[in-house]
Amino acid sequence: MKGLFITLEGPDGSGKTTQVAKVADYLSKKNINFIQTREPGGTRISDKIRSLILDPEHKEMHDLTEVLLYAASRAQHVHEKIIPALEAGKVVICDRFVDASLAYQGFGLGVGEEPVMQVNNIATGGLVPDRSYFVDVSPQVGRERMKARYGTASLDRIEQKDFTYHERVREGFEHIFSKQSDRIVRVNGEQDHETVFKEIAKDLDQLLANHKEK
Amino acid sequence: MKGLFITLEGPDGSGKTTQVAKVADYLSKKNINFIQTREPGGTRISDKIRSLILDPEHKEMHDLTEVLLYAASRAQHVHEKIIPALEAGKVVICDRFVDASLAYQGFGLGVGEEPVMQVNNIATGGLVPDRSYFVDVSPQVGRERMKARYGTASLDRIEQKDFTYHERVREGFEHIFSKQSDRIVRVNGEQDHETVFKEIAKDLDQLLANHKEK
Repeated sequence: MKGLFITLEGPDGSGKTTQVAKVADYLSKKNINFIQTREPGGTRISDKIRSLILDPEHKEMHDLTEVLLYAASRAQHVHEKIIPALEAGKVVICDRFVDASLAYQGFGLGVGEEPVMQVNNIATGGLVPDRSYFVDVSPQVGRERMKARYGTASLDRIEQKDFTYHERVREGFEHIFSKQSDRIVRVNGEQDHETVFKEIAKDLDQLLANHKEK
Repeated sequence: MKGLFITLEGPDGSGKTTQVAKVADYLSKKNINFIQTREPGGTRISDKIRSLILDPEHKEMHDLTEVLLYAASRAQHVHEKIIPALEAGKVVICDRFVDASLAYQGFGLGVGEEPVMQVNNIATGGLVPDRSYFVDVSPQVGRERMKARYGTASLDRIEQKDFTYHERVREGFEHIFSKQSDRIVRVNGEQDHETVFKEIAKDLDQLLANHKEK
């Protein structure tokens, strides 16, 4: 595949969505052909699945149902949108991908790394990002930012979960990062947005330069 | 688990849903504690997933998305409804289960037996029916019955697929049957409903008697 697949990962409130927008803006200014997308969602069918997953009414949703719905949404997203863009030589910037499922469902819900990995390998056909930026903040900071942004009332089903859940998610990200530190670049998300972006841009420039040479 | 898990399988138009109702009626008259359910569906969340899968508008749905949505619907159904009923000692009669996914998605869509099995093993936690009745009709007869019942216009996304698809589904059922002939009892669905039911009831009586002795 000729394109370049870049994901941004991190807990809720890490500021990764702000960074996705900054990366998109940066690529625009460089006249690089790219698409910007996000998970869960990214296509019409994936968005419908996303609504099912996040509906705060669905309190009886089983953990395995959640794992499989995220994977279904991802399968559609990968095959309808991401792979065609990569095959057309574009850069794809995606807000969350498989690492998020491993952290949130594998570790947060406690489903385990193995079944989440298996299901997602089938969903993606084994597609792995070329680079993932892990925007890291402590669960405390993430939580405070989410509350400041939305208030407690409007948090979705996942965001409403208890604090220990979000701590396990953080541990999950740490674990994934420690296993794949060649692919995943960690940035300190507790810095101001501009500083965070400078760190990302530095690595991104290198990545784009190497990719051009190929 | 103290209960007894019975599924009915077969292609569209095989008459299996009629047989599910007859089995339920039979158990009622024998004062056996049972629940009757169906796939895809069976719970509130599973029904919402079912609507997504069968919506004739979703023509762009990828085969793997379909596999994962069926599995998500099944995970919720198994863990919210089937396992609790079996643990309470009930008989569970279910219209379609994993065999249908293997036949329709593994063989019909051509996704393959292996990934469909893997995903479903995770979804069900390895739950396998005690007995499955495979109501067998030729694709021609199934198709004619569906057309007579609904007309062509109102067929759902799956039913609308071409004839060779339904032939592959039939081959899938044959394959599964040949591998698990101890669990799966095949009945000729081209006979009249009463004759079909007599064959099922004969086996069912034996099954209930053996189960009582345990």
